[in-house]
Amino acid sequence: MAPIDQEHGTTVLHRPADQHPPRTWRSWLIGRPLATADAPHQTIGKAIGLAVFASDALSSTAYATQEILFILAVAGTAAFGYAFPISIAIVVLLAIVVVSYEQTIHAYPNSASAYIVTRDNLGTLPSQTTGAALLTDYILTVAVSISSGVAQITSAYPDLYDFRVEIAVGMVALIMLINLRGVKESGVAFAIPTYFFLMMIFMTVITGLVRYLTGSLTGVVDPPHLELTEVAQPITLFLILHAFASGTTALTGVEAISDGVPAFKEPRTHNAGITLIWMASILGALFLGITFLAIQIGAIPSESETVISQLVRTAYDGRGILYLVTIASTTIILIMAANTAYADFPRLSALMAADGFLPRQLTYRGSRLVFSRGIIALGLLASLLIIIFQASVTALIPLYAIGVFLSFTLSQAGMAHRWWKIGQLAPGQEVQERGSVLRYDPGWRPKMVINGFGAVCTFIVMLIFAFTKFVHGAWIVLLLIPLLVMVLSGIHRHYQGLAKRLSLRNYQGDLRLTRHRVILLVGGVHQGTLAALRYARFLSDDITAVHVSINPDESQRIRNEWEKWGNGVRIVILESPYRLLLEPLLDYINDLDTRRQPGEIITVVVPQFVPRHWWHNLLHTQTAFMLRITLLFRPGIVITDVPYQVE
Amino acid sequence: MAPIDQEHGTTVLHRPADQHPPRTWRSWLIGRPLATADAPHQTIGKAIGLAVFASDALSSTAYATQEILFILAVAGTAAFGYAFPISIAIVVLLAIVVVSYEQTIHAYPNSASAYIVTRDNLGTLPSQTTGAALLTDYILTVAVSISSGVAQITSAYPDLYDFRVEIAVGMVALIMLINLRGVKESGVAFAIPTYFFLMMIFMTVITGLVRYLTGSLTGVVDPPHLELTEVAQPITLFLILHAFASGTTALTGVEAISDGVPAFKEPRTHNAGITLIWMASILGALFLGITFLAIQIGAIPSESETVISQLVRTAYDGRGILYLVTIASTTIILIMAANTAYADFPRLSALMAADGFLPRQLTYRGSRLVFSRGIIALGLLASLLIIIFQASVTALIPLYAIGVFLSFTLSQAGMAHRWWKIGQLAPGQEVQERGSVLRYDPGWRPKMVINGFGAVCTFIVMLIFAFTKFVHGAWIVLLLIPLLVMVLSGIHRHYQGLAKRLSLRNYQGDLRLTRHRVILLVGGVHQGTLAALRYARFLSDDITAVHVSINPDESQRIRNEWEKWGNGVRIVILESPYRLLLEPLLDYINDLDTRRQPGEIITVVVPQFVPRHWWHNLLHTQTAFMLRITLLFRPGIVITDVPYQVE
Repeated sequence: MAPIDQEHGTTVLHRPADQHPPRTWRSWLIGRPLATADAPHQTIGKAIGLAVFASDALSSTAYATQEILFILAVAGTAAFGYAFPISIAIVVLLAIVVVSYEQTIHAYPNSASAYIVTRDNLGTLPSQTTGAALLTDYILTVAVSISSGVAQITSAYPDLYDFRVEIAVGMVALIMLINLRGVKESGVAFAIPTYFFLMMIFMTVITGLVRYLTGSLTGVVDPPHLELTEVAQPITLFLILHAFASGTTALTGVEAISDGVPAFKEPRTHNAGITLIWMASILGALFLGITFLAIQIGAIPSESETVISQLVRTAYDGRGILYLVTIASTTIILIMAANTAYADFPRLSALMAADGFLPRQLTYRGSRLVFSRGIIALGLLASLLIIIFQASVTALIPLYAIGVFLSFTLSQAGMAHRWWKIGQLAPGQEVQERGSVLRYDPGWRPKMVINGFGAVCTFIVMLIFAFTKFVHGAWIVLLLIPLLVMVLSGIHRHYQGLAKRLSLRNYQGDLRLTRHRVILLVGGVHQGTLAALRYARFLSDDITAVHVSINPDESQRIRNEWEKWGNGVRIVILESPYRLLLEPLLDYINDLDTRRQPGEIITVVVPQFVPRHWWHNLLHTQTAFMLRITLLFRPGIVITDVPYQVE
Repeated sequence: MAPIDQEHGTTVLHRPADQHPPRTWRSWLIGRPLATADAPHQTIGKAIGLAVFASDALSSTAYATQEILFILAVAGTAAFGYAFPISIAIVVLLAIVVVSYEQTIHAYPNSASAYIVTRDNLGTLPSQTTGAALLTDYILTVAVSISSGVAQITSAYPDLYDFRVEIAVGMVALIMLINLRGVKESGVAFAIPTYFFLMMIFMTVITGLVRYLTGSLTGVVDPPHLELTEVAQPITLFLILHAFASGTTALTGVEAISDGVPAFKEPRTHNAGITLIWMASILGALFLGITFLAIQIGAIPSESETVISQLVRTAYDGRGILYLVTIASTTIILIMAANTAYADFPRLSALMAADGFLPRQLTYRGSRLVFSRGIIALGLLASLLIIIFQASVTALIPLYAIGVFLSFTLSQAGMAHRWWKIGQLAPGQEVQERGSVLRYDPGWRPKMVINGFGAVCTFIVMLIFAFTKFVHGAWIVLLLIPLLVMVLSGIHRHYQGLAKRLSLRNYQGDLRLTRHRVILLVGGVHQGTLAALRYARFLSDDITAVHVSINPDESQRIRNEWEKWGNGVRIVILESPYRLLLEPLLDYINDLDTRRQPGEIITVVVPQFVPRHWWHNLLHTQTAFMLRITLLFRPGIVITDVPYQVE
């Protein structure tokens, strides 16, 4: 360390970033600390971008079809035929959402995160609602993706079914650890498994389709048992809508690219937009293909074997090497989808914390430059969900997607409002508004209609989802989001109130301190007490030693010793008929407090014994600690413990 | 409060004991605090003394017979006949112990506790062994007595069997609470149930004997099923000794009177001695009677119904009102036996803590004048035992009694040694030795022989117990007691070492303090920081404000604001390339530390934000706290946090 910059009484000690802090158990676990200057600035192209941002969206094909079938199953296997038209409706919805988002990306080249779009266009309450919805959804993304990944594993190895919760929680912890290290070479590391998954799953779908066309596609051999709790119900509109709602989980993760626009190579909005359209096309094609084939082979939705597993082993005639490789790639893409949430959740919570709606600590980057606290919070919450819902995708689905559609709706509504404002500007006029520049655009009307239509569609879908899945768990999220918004507002009020009260604007300065009264707590007369006395004498001349007397004999001894060692400092003996230590002391301090002059400050000096081993503390009373807690709320009283180390 | 006594710079603030502290939830639970002056000084006569001290010993008749039968059962019901001769042997042992203790009472009129007798005559290691043995045994007394009490209840109401652990733990908690309140009117409160139990149980035994003599005593109707795990084993000497060992649990609690000599009316040793002999006679008669009758009616030892229950319902021909009243009185006496341990354990641990072998806190009397910490410790440990051993008396018995016989042996050996020392004195000579006066006694030889014989007998019984019950659980205690002795010695060494290092004997006084360097931690410039600055300026003129810079923009802002508000105090900005807060600060302090002049002290002043609600702390970093923990072990550095309360 060397002082470099010195002016006006200010010294800045620069510390070169190559002086690495020492290794600890933590650095062994998550890697050496990274300097702030090391933050990565690399950008990525479209092909890598697809790999990085699309895993969440693409991986939903692993469970969306199955969840549609689960709902239709209550009307018997005959109802499975409805799955394909439902899938087509979902793909249409996907197209609407993607077109709407494409416009958003171009309007917000820095970050088209739904939170920012809502905040900048609709204000605090909608943006906090979006924030709460997204945070909830990121947690669910981890829980659902990992649970589905584990379901793929247990489909291949049914013996592991009983350990699904443990495996899932272990995976959440592993991904947490990886993210705490920080993923620097994310691009290539993501591209390989994503493209491998796409290759394997397309191969499966194409093989299936070819065999279907050539008539060699058989039904599922030895399908799982269809668990029907009641007699088959009639097919109602409600049932169809319910199945549709389950299928919309295929759309989760579509927003990832719009959050990550700044990561793309220039022209970044153009590249991000193209990538979004690629991703949507692949997702739509895969989803339709899988649903179509699942119906053809008579796949049965089940907790014990996933529909994907049934499809793959039917296409390849058994659990051979191709089956295992495909299932493995599906599992990996699902885990990577969870990984996406580990990037999104901490980033969003840091954003919200910077706005003062979440604890400030979430804005601190940890030793590896990642938002460690957010990563840990996400890991714990997702593990909790997995344990509560026993790693069942079907049980988790009713909680999922509401948040996604709520944030879709609010951000698209925000965009529509934004186009309307642009329409009010004079041609050529530019207005700087919060995070973005509003510039007149003659095509504002159709753009407003597109975003508005997107908002209306996703809003309707959200209502369908909430309504059809209300009793199955959607109520939890419908309760949780307003609750979260209340907490966020409470935190915001706290920070705002605090800033106001601590502000130096119009601050006149307090009364000058005029008297410093020092109270030295004496439990016994020994070297530690004398060290504290020496310190106290340095603070002020106005010292009173105070001893709380529980045992009169001992008090007499202390009086005698104090006469010898107390350096003339007066001592007050407080009798304690009820053998209490703190209470007489507090009474005494109260008494001084009420007779305090303006500008007088009281310091209580407590000799604190520091043992060699922490467990030695069990053998000593923790007076200083108790006193500090009790007096913390009193203005003008400072507790100082003078530690004396016994060597 | 009024200062009364003032001399030589000493003020004593008397506080009248009638100024009761305010009521709290604790005072509601355990009663209002009692003043030290309220400690009871009443003494009791023989009849009340018997009731107060004998419940532990007398209550063992409720399980001793059953435990003998449990062991003999492995040789089949035919072996039950051996129970009576075994009981006679146990009564003989009782007589030996009582005669031996009678002598001890006269020698130690203040307290003939085995711990004190051993400490004063045999030294530290034996006395700590006795202490460890007795503490272990008190815990077991609670566990065994309560478990047996609950077994009586579940004998009468078999439906409650599944809840036995819950009931037992609940009872332990209840007795703990009663003892935390303090039992003031103990005498009468104890006399009624004790004499009621004696009346009921003697009535049962006499009814049984009369019916036996008139030939109208039947066998047990519908006895519990005898649980035999293997084929009947032959009757071996080992088996007989094993059954004998189980029966010796009848002797537990005999030492209670010798611990309580000072509570008796004068002539107290005489009265205590007479009471001891009464108690032993009653105990012996009851034990023999119960064992004799149990064999005659063919009682079966069982976890589901106690032998006492079988005996009572056979004597009274069924579960009538007499049965219920007798069982109820047995349950109550067992609970009172547990209560005895609640008096003994805290008293002994306070004694050992005063000698420096247990944490000092155990010597503090709580608000109700009782040793609250010892009471709570006993309650928790006994509950733990009950849970581990599922409230089974038979499972707990192998752990019991070793401690009792070990302390018997050591205290009688101590007495024998004492008589030998007395024998070495000249006639008429008196020697003050630790707690007692040694005075020449011409009858020292026979007295030494009696105590010596007592020591040898109890030692042999202890060996028999340890040997026959080793695998069943005695090994736990044989391991635990040396371990406990090691812990006790460790604690003693800690206190002794500390006293030596803190001692003012040969203390020359430390270096005078010459320089006070104050470091003010600045996280931001606001009213709280300025309050801390005001305080720091009062401490010393040598102040340096220190800011750890994670974000350069923010640091620049702080520099600017400090120029305006910092009152000319110089500020040091510590750059933190790894975004760490504590480490750069510690480096800086280290640096100052190494360049420190002799007699220089460093105070680190940390502005600490005190929120209105404790949970607001979650929204703030706890720098002061972390810093205190980290710097605690550094000599010459004092951390002062100046709290600023936000109102």
